[in-house]
Amino acid sequence: MKKFCNDPKNYVPDMLKGIALANQDKLKYIPDYNLIMRADIPQPNKVSIMQGSGSGHEPAHVMIVGKGMLDAACPGNVFAAPPPDYVYQTTKLIAGPMGVLHLLNNYTGDTMSFDTGRELAEAEGIEVRTVVINDDVAVKDSTYTVGRRGVAGNFFVIKAVGAASERGATLEELEKLGNRVVSVTRTFGVALTGCTPPAKGTPIFTLEEDEMEMGIGIHGEPGRKRVKIQPADKIIDEVFAIVADDLPYKAGDEVALMINGMGGTPISELYILYGHAHELAEKRGLKIKRHYVGEYCTSLEMAGFSLTLVKLDPELEDLLAAPAEAAIHIF
Amino acid sequence: MKKFCNDPKNYVPDMLKGIALANQDKLKYIPDYNLIMRADIPQPNKVSIMQGSGSGHEPAHVMIVGKGMLDAACPGNVFAAPPPDYVYQTTKLIAGPMGVLHLLNNYTGDTMSFDTGRELAEAEGIEVRTVVINDDVAVKDSTYTVGRRGVAGNFFVIKAVGAASERGATLEELEKLGNRVVSVTRTFGVALTGCTPPAKGTPIFTLEEDEMEMGIGIHGEPGRKRVKIQPADKIIDEVFAIVADDLPYKAGDEVALMINGMGGTPISELYILYGHAHELAEKRGLKIKRHYVGEYCTSLEMAGFSLTLVKLDPELEDLLAAPAEAAIHIF
Repeated sequence: MKKFCNDPKNYVPDMLKGIALANQDKLKYIPDYNLIMRADIPQPNKVSIMQGSGSGHEPAHVMIVGKGMLDAACPGNVFAAPPPDYVYQTTKLIAGPMGVLHLLNNYTGDTMSFDTGRELAEAEGIEVRTVVINDDVAVKDSTYTVGRRGVAGNFFVIKAVGAASERGATLEELEKLGNRVVSVTRTFGVALTGCTPPAKGTPIFTLEEDEMEMGIGIHGEPGRKRVKIQPADKIIDEVFAIVADDLPYKAGDEVALMINGMGGTPISELYILYGHAHELAEKRGLKIKRHYVGEYCTSLEMAGFSLTLVKLDPELEDLLAAPAEAAIHIF
Repeated sequence: MKKFCNDPKNYVPDMLKGIALANQDKLKYIPDYNLIMRADIPQPNKVSIMQGSGSGHEPAHVMIVGKGMLDAACPGNVFAAPPPDYVYQTTKLIAGPMGVLHLLNNYTGDTMSFDTGRELAEAEGIEVRTVVINDDVAVKDSTYTVGRRGVAGNFFVIKAVGAASERGATLEELEKLGNRVVSVTRTFGVALTGCTPPAKGTPIFTLEEDEMEMGIGIHGEPGRKRVKIQPADKIIDEVFAIVADDLPYKAGDEVALMINGMGGTPISELYILYGHAHELAEKRGLKIKRHYVGEYCTSLEMAGFSLTLVKLDPELEDLLAAPAEAAIHIF
């Protein structure tokens, strides 16, 4: 296993410590619950927003806590849902008078944890609403999922509700907005390699040297098929059609287009993929108003990418363009 | 070879096309010279700044062209210097009345191209100054270098002179500033794996499953030694001491600390490395004023990282904090 880590059992705590040390002015870290939260939350006039999930998908979610994004993240271990108690304690700590919005990607483990955590918080009088993200069009049900999986499209839900919450939107409005973003967001992923969870020490799956997996999940769950590697443009031809036909996205639609790296693919390759996706979007008559190329929701060091389309309206475009802060930054 | 690409010969043009399509409002792409430049350059009251280098180090340099950063980048093929003609043509296209600043990482091929390109431009009356970046403390001379190599520290030179040029600094002032940043910047890199240039199709070097290379270059040039993989904290103990002792950085110094990913290492591991580097910096009495964790100067899909320290003064800190734009972005 070729990783920069200490004891694999401490992979997540060591990472959280790094995030916390780098952002002592803005973030609080509570090791007991793997909790990263904004230091200035709760606030009287703002709904607090949190997401938990398995670790291994960074920057989602522990590195996108900040003003205009998440108010807190409570990750589980690598590829494992956070325990219900983490969800409950995090909810309590960030709860203000306007309530708490739970965001979660649609996996059975996460859903169970969040359901229990929500019940415990509600029993103490905290108002909670939940938005479940399920943007992955690859498979109907999956290894860890009833219904579609939630993947990189969750960035757009977080960005939109994060911005709206800063403007004072109510819990009900945010729930409605989150569900609206989910309803117009579609994603499909492709892997060239597997990845190795630190505590396991061996790859969760392997592909032959000339093979790729179409429709891969972000925990190595099987996709639609294993096929011989194709040239980048041919891969995008197939992936773009699958995503665009699903909603479908139609001529004249204004969209955001994302090429998300899975962790081990260099950004040079992501831009090669983006270029052809952009051409296909224009050919279909879509108007690309915003683009995203980089790592948003990864699978450790997996070589792979996913393509996401979001249908925009003026309100959503404005929310995506609003200022935001996070541990991840370039400048 | 597991890559998302079409014809390996078109790896760089296909990538540049993607960057250009994504940024049609802000960037110009001239395929004849692999040239990516700001659409609003030259300007009468601003020195224009350019860097060329081999490709394969993205986001450096083609993805960091933008206001407050580079005004143009003219990349060569993967790991190959740009031809002198690209340097010359790029210089001509961006030249305004205040002249052109050439930035280059210290490699023999780049130096030769930039020397010739500069002479051709000067023969036409364009004023050019050059700053050579050589922040890598790992080796004295190297496969492609006389003297120290230029690596991820170049980000700080670009950011500082980019910001100062927006404020109207003269060519002479920028040359002096660039050299000043170089003089306080030190880097050291570590690799867990090699990488595969697309046109070559095979790895440029290989490491055993339990091996790492200390002091690696960004083109696979040998470093100081090959050793068994150590826990992350032990690696950082050694790397931090090498970098910090070189200038040296002393108790009371204000610094920027960067953990740069080499392309194939997930950001979760980069934060594990950052956390311990932060602890060591504090132990030494350094005051971390700015931190950078992510990919700044990569080596295709190599698994690895580099650690950079920059000694700050109030002017440099202010320049690093100034607003900037680039093709790479998160939000």
